[in-house]
Amino acid sequence: MVKHVVTFGEIMLRLAPPGMERFLQSPQFVATFGGGEANVAVAVAQLGLPAAYVTVLPDANPIADAAIGELRRFGVDTSRIVRGKGRMGIYYLEAGANQRASKVVYDRANSAIALAKPGDIDWDRAFEGAGWFHITGITPAISAAAAELSLESMQQARRKGLTVSCDLNYRKNLWKYGKTAVEVMRELTRHVDIAIANEEDVQMALGIQAGVDVHSGELDRGQYEKLTAKVLDAYPQMKAIAITLRESKSASHNGWAACLNDRTGFLVSRH
Amino acid sequence: MVKHVVTFGEIMLRLAPPGMERFLQSPQFVATFGGGEANVAVAVAQLGLPAAYVTVLPDANPIADAAIGELRRFGVDTSRIVRGKGRMGIYYLEAGANQRASKVVYDRANSAIALAKPGDIDWDRAFEGAGWFHITGITPAISAAAAELSLESMQQARRKGLTVSCDLNYRKNLWKYGKTAVEVMRELTRHVDIAIANEEDVQMALGIQAGVDVHSGELDRGQYEKLTAKVLDAYPQMKAIAITLRESKSASHNGWAACLNDRTGFLVSRH
Amino acid sequence: MVKHVVTFGEIMLRLAPPGMERFLQSPQFVATFGGGEANVAVAVAQLGLPAAYVTVLPDANPIADAAIGELRRFGVDTSRIVRGKGRMGIYYLEAGANQRASKVVYDRANSAIALAKPGDIDWDRAFEGAGWFHITGITPAISAAAAELSLESMQQARRKGLTVSCDLNYRKNLWKYGKTAVEVMRELTRHVDIAIANEEDVQMALGIQAGVDVHSGELDRGQYEKLTAKVLDAYPQMKAIAITLRESKSASHNGWAACLNDRTGFLVSRH
Amino acid sequence: MVKHVVTFGEIMLRLAPPGMERFLQSPQFVATFGGGEANVAVAVAQLGLPAAYVTVLPDANPIADAAIGELRRFGVDTSRIVRGKGRMGIYYLEAGANQRASKVVYDRANSAIALAKPGDIDWDRAFEGAGWFHITGITPAISAAAAELSLESMQQARRKGLTVSCDLNYRKNLWKYGKTAVEVMRELTRHVDIAIANEEDVQMALGIQAGVDVHSGELDRGQYEKLTAKVLDAYPQMKAIAITLRESKSASHNGWAACLNDRTGFLVSRH
Amino acid sequence: MVKHVVTFGEIMLRLAPPGMERFLQSPQFVATFGGGEANVAVAVAQLGLPAAYVTVLPDANPIADAAIGELRRFGVDTSRIVRGKGRMGIYYLEAGANQRASKVVYDRANSAIALAKPGDIDWDRAFEGAGWFHITGITPAISAAAAELSLESMQQARRKGLTVSCDLNYRKNLWKYGKTAVEVMRELTRHVDIAIANEEDVQMALGIQAGVDVHSGELDRGQYEKLTAKVLDAYPQMKAIAITLRESKSASHNGWAACLNDRTGFLVSRH
Amino acid sequence: MVKHVVTFGEIMLRLAPPGMERFLQSPQFVATFGGGEANVAVAVAQLGLPAAYVTVLPDANPIADAAIGELRRFGVDTSRIVRGKGRMGIYYLEAGANQRASKVVYDRANSAIALAKPGDIDWDRAFEGAGWFHITGITPAISAAAAELSLESMQQARRKGLTVSCDLNYRKNLWKYGKTAVEVMRELTRHVDIAIANEEDVQMALGIQAGVDVHSGELDRGQYEKLTAKVLDAYPQMKAIAITLRESKSASHNGWAACLNDRTGFLVSRH
Repeated sequence: MVKHVVTFGEIMLRLAPPGMERFLQSPQFVATFGGGEANVAVAVAQLGLPAAYVTVLPDANPIADAAIGELRRFGVDTSRIVRGKGRMGIYYLEAGANQRASKVVYDRANSAIALAKPGDIDWDRAFEGAGWFHITGITPAISAAAAELSLESMQQARRKGLTVSCDLNYRKNLWKYGKTAVEVMRELTRHVDIAIANEEDVQMALGIQAGVDVHSGELDRGQYEKLTAKVLDAYPQMKAIAITLRESKSASHNGWAACLNDRTGFLVSRH
Repeated sequence: MVKHVVTFGEIMLRLAPPGMERFLQSPQFVATFGGGEANVAVAVAQLGLPAAYVTVLPDANPIADAAIGELRRFGVDTSRIVRGKGRMGIYYLEAGANQRASKVVYDRANSAIALAKPGDIDWDRAFEGAGWFHITGITPAISAAAAELSLESMQQARRKGLTVSCDLNYRKNLWKYGKTAVEVMRELTRHVDIAIANEEDVQMALGIQAGVDVHSGELDRGQYEKLTAKVLDAYPQMKAIAITLRESKSASHNGWAACLNDRTGFLVSRH
Repeated sequence: MVKHVVTFGEIMLRLAPPGMERFLQSPQFVATFGGGEANVAVAVAQLGLPAAYVTVLPDANPIADAAIGELRRFGVDTSRIVRGKGRMGIYYLEAGANQRASKVVYDRANSAIALAKPGDIDWDRAFEGAGWFHITGITPAISAAAAELSLESMQQARRKGLTVSCDLNYRKNLWKYGKTAVEVMRELTRHVDIAIANEEDVQMALGIQAGVDVHSGELDRGQYEKLTAKVLDAYPQMKAIAITLRESKSASHNGWAACLNDRTGFLVSRH
Repeated sequence: MVKHVVTFGEIMLRLAPPGMERFLQSPQFVATFGGGEANVAVAVAQLGLPAAYVTVLPDANPIADAAIGELRRFGVDTSRIVRGKGRMGIYYLEAGANQRASKVVYDRANSAIALAKPGDIDWDRAFEGAGWFHITGITPAISAAAAELSLESMQQARRKGLTVSCDLNYRKNLWKYGKTAVEVMRELTRHVDIAIANEEDVQMALGIQAGVDVHSGELDRGQYEKLTAKVLDAYPQMKAIAITLRESKSASHNGWAACLNDRTGFLVSRH
Repeated sequence: MVKHVVTFGEIMLRLAPPGMERFLQSPQFVATFGGGEANVAVAVAQLGLPAAYVTVLPDANPIADAAIGELRRFGVDTSRIVRGKGRMGIYYLEAGANQRASKVVYDRANSAIALAKPGDIDWDRAFEGAGWFHITGITPAISAAAAELSLESMQQARRKGLTVSCDLNYRKNLWKYGKTAVEVMRELTRHVDIAIANEEDVQMALGIQAGVDVHSGELDRGQYEKLTAKVLDAYPQMKAIAITLRESKSASHNGWAACLNDRTGFLVSRH
Repeated sequence: MVKHVVTFGEIMLRLAPPGMERFLQSPQFVATFGGGEANVAVAVAQLGLPAAYVTVLPDANPIADAAIGELRRFGVDTSRIVRGKGRMGIYYLEAGANQRASKVVYDRANSAIALAKPGDIDWDRAFEGAGWFHITGITPAISAAAAELSLESMQQARRKGLTVSCDLNYRKNLWKYGKTAVEVMRELTRHVDIAIANEEDVQMALGIQAGVDVHSGELDRGQYEKLTAKVLDAYPQMKAIAITLRESKSASHNGWAACLNDRTGFLVSRH
């Protein structure tokens, strides 16, 4: 029987004006749910594999119930989600147009996951039948307690023999609780089997300098091979590291490229 | 020149599903702004009188900007609004249907007005050219600081010679910061010229018992006259007290009645 | 551990114009899914009990996938649904207004459930962990094969010790495959523990005459007690029969009443 | 007086999610009607020429009534449409985005036109005042009966002296009733005055090999001239053949090119 | 062959906010077309009788084209509509709610029909194959020229032997071009075979006093019989007069009653 | 204290079908307000500077009230707007797609601003606290009276020491009241401090020939320098002239360039 992929992180209510309108130009928001780790769970489930999503959501809250229902609609196992204190995180998103930049307004302070701490999640239950655990660098950036909970999740996953993957995903507008990304992420990364990152993540989350030109938008094979080698050298337990790169072709079309260093070779793929 | 009516309180983002739908049945919210004191300012402005609304809203927040723009659209003077720390309060509203009750979910903790404290509002600026000040029993129920700020607003208004009106408006799901409504509202009511209330407000906010049958839905002239007399006796500075009563006629039509005791007589009006 | 309630029937795509519009007045349909047995499963799940829904849906069909996702969103176990040949049944619904009657257009011929036959559903899998089975008089009305499949489902459920409930639900615009409702439903009703019906169902599906005035809209206790006694006499295995009655109070409000005869007494409830 | 252009084929209900959404992401479908032959009739009418559309639609069906009303709105004469048995064909369409392909789900089996057979349409009435008849290779692909009806339509049109045009339009996901496109279309093409085709149609519907690179997206004058000459050689009654070519320039802009061989010369036009 | 019913009047663009919203609360209008005479033509066509609508609409105007397409969609013959100078009339409509009244804003000055004058319509073409002509008291109220055109239409219809019906329909906010309704309508009514009116129309358009209580909302048989007799006495050519009465039962349900005096008897019908 | 920027012109109701639909494909219009001078006032207010908009709008008209409310929402001072006779101007806009061109239908005759004449606006009130006045070549193109009112506005502004800017903005489909653009605009331009124009405006409004290739879409520095010098020579009071140029990069992205000749130098800026 195929084992579950379990992902862990925050899911927020995402409120966006319809179409290309500005905030409240019409008295209406398109209301969906967003969170990178939940997206991974949905994608895995849509590909036909068993996927479960773990998070902490506010108790007795119909908006959180709707978020769970939405994940279930896509076939994600939501029975391991914990309900607790705190609120549902929200972000507002206004699409840009022409010379006007897009706007994001976060309203995620005191969310249930930000208030959660080690011991709040029953990892035996969360990892039942699981073979893979996926986490990102966003959760440890939310609060000191969430960082400790992230560390706990990875230690527990490793103890139970799961493969641990982590998308380092550095976000400079988080990390406001007193510790730097490097202080926290270096420790967490020691429990990672498969890392996913880009050059900015490597630099800001691990403190490893890369001579890569971030804005060239083209994949320089040699530079990326060196960069991934540096990370693998620094983290001997790590089995592989992948780098993804979006190449903007036009407003509505992107090309995607990725490279993988699994210590046996370096692969590049484009689409 | 006609003097401004100034109202003071909290304005929140109000998110409701379209039509009679349940929360997130469609991925959409109708997004408007709600707050009793702001509604009074809008109504006054629509009647053609100068009206200003005072509140504290989060700084550098486009949703708060939109709330201000919406008030301005209705002709309310928003130049006295203060921007500060904290978030924009939110409430989610799902309409009921048949045997299904309506649902309200509040997400207003740590709103800018809840965090505001005496001294945060420049009352000289707020009351410029004003002849009337209106407040409700909702603001002092939000937080201890907001209750102190409410008291300050009424004292300042009285000192400047404004007429002070207050809709006692008792809300049992607020008042969670340690003080009871009676403890706070009795003191505030000593600064009120014109009170607006119903029998529940009088009992829960002022501790004055009323022999009125709340659920009869009909206005008993004698009982209401006695009740208003009791309040006027308890608060000698009060010039008048009004009671409003909604008479539900059908799902879509309500009758409205009101009575007024201004110490010179007792008037009843129905519509 | 609480056992599952399993319901079985057809779920169709329901296409309705927005609001009170007529068919295609705007180029738009509100698209949801409808089916009495699925509704029961959703209601049971929303009440917090384990519920599963069994049906046959067309294979490799994204609209059927969406129907399954929608059930899953409400917490219904959809893992027992069988995919097969045939199409997704559809019905178009236009709301009435004033003197204009509502319109329903069925397009359900050759649906997957209409083509299904005994043997197509693995009842061991369908009834795993189940304690209750619910069916209606609609499924046996669709096609001769569906009637045989319905009989099979009830026999299997009884064999496994499940409580079998059946909403007789007579629909005169179905029953077009050559047999009458009475011919089929009398046999099926011999496997029912709990029947749900109104006076028209009892007459048209079981051939038992009732002296009840269908259109009075009021519940005559004596007449309903006699009617339910007649049914219990005719079906000795039946443990109880319930009658539901909708009392139209206005265009938007209905009263609901129900009565139950469980051989030990006769109860009436109104809401 | 200008004579009517009469077109003949199937018109289906087209259900698509709003914007770029996936099937039933919102509970809503944009509902329009689609069919190449109806589109030609609408285009002719919009250009100001008299146009009539002939088809068979289900009797006593408000969705079919709406399709007729929509054609009438664009000025198409719908008085020659025949109502009969069967259902309204449907297709569901989900737009693609980025790496995600678009999806089409057909639900057109047992449509009224698929069930129609020679004799069901009164061609004297259908061709009243007509000078031109247009048909496509889609109708003969639906069912054996529809293929015979198509042949009848063309024979009748030729007998009455109408110009017959046919868009060969090969669709590989149709042609499921036992005959191949080549078997059927070769016979029908013997009654065509003006053919419209692309290189794939010529090969799959007529069995004539073309050395044209379908995917180059550019019009090679020489190759197309040879290809059209081959078709004209094979069908001596044919007066002209046109080839249309869409050149994809971006996601939202296409260039259009066409060439025409009318036995007197070879013309190319781009736009 | 059944002869056409021809109706004549103004059709306007009708702009209303969605649902119960106020003007431009959302940046959106529901856009349909309104006009009593066009409504009659649509109703006749929907009942299956041949109906034609005659009016003057602005030339080279896509909004007018859309109005014509919409009528055609409902099966109305629009080929007799004349295109001329002037603009498309518009009215804005905001629904009332509770104590708030509904609002109508007219923007119909200089519409094509208001500018039209005798001779602009070819009545031989307009009345081809017609047996009945319907007009209302709205058109002669628009402008002096439209009143003359109305008289011409009725004289021509009578000359050709058509039955002429007229809904007197007095609107006090029209009649602004210098003549009173009584001056104009008395002359026009001399060409009417079948009149439709209520007591206000009879008084304001014909100057005949009625002792009917307009606001009682109930049909007093005796009073209405007297009133219709008075009108028939005053207009000897008139064959019959009908009175319609809407009885408001609730916000969403109306009862309808009508009475008819055809000189042979007096009939009352309710629904 | 920063002085107000005052703009003056016409604001119209703008009715557009949703998305890429054609006129009344759905019974719906997106309803906003448009007018270049109002847009400038909104932009100035959004940048944080005090802005006022002056126009004449129809009295007692809720659509005009809504236009004012909308401007107020964006922080524009609307207290100087005059209400008068006439109607609200309207324009209908249908977006183009692929080979189909966009369509604009104007319905602005007899608008309140078109009927306004010198003396209707109290310029002392309009220019209170103002430092800058902005007008365009559209207003003088509407009617002879509006042209005289435009001249009056500029003379008054100059008399009061305001800087006067004018966007020449030649529109060939206006200018229908008997005078040519050159006749009128040459006189007005003698009161302009800062002109904004493109090469077509300079030629059609001022009669100054430019050797600029309008359709090259690229900014030729030398030619534009010569053109602006010619205008400055012809109008000695003018302090500066700016030219804006939109460079179409794709359907959804434009580049913007501008150049400025302020008699001390010639600057070019691109974005």
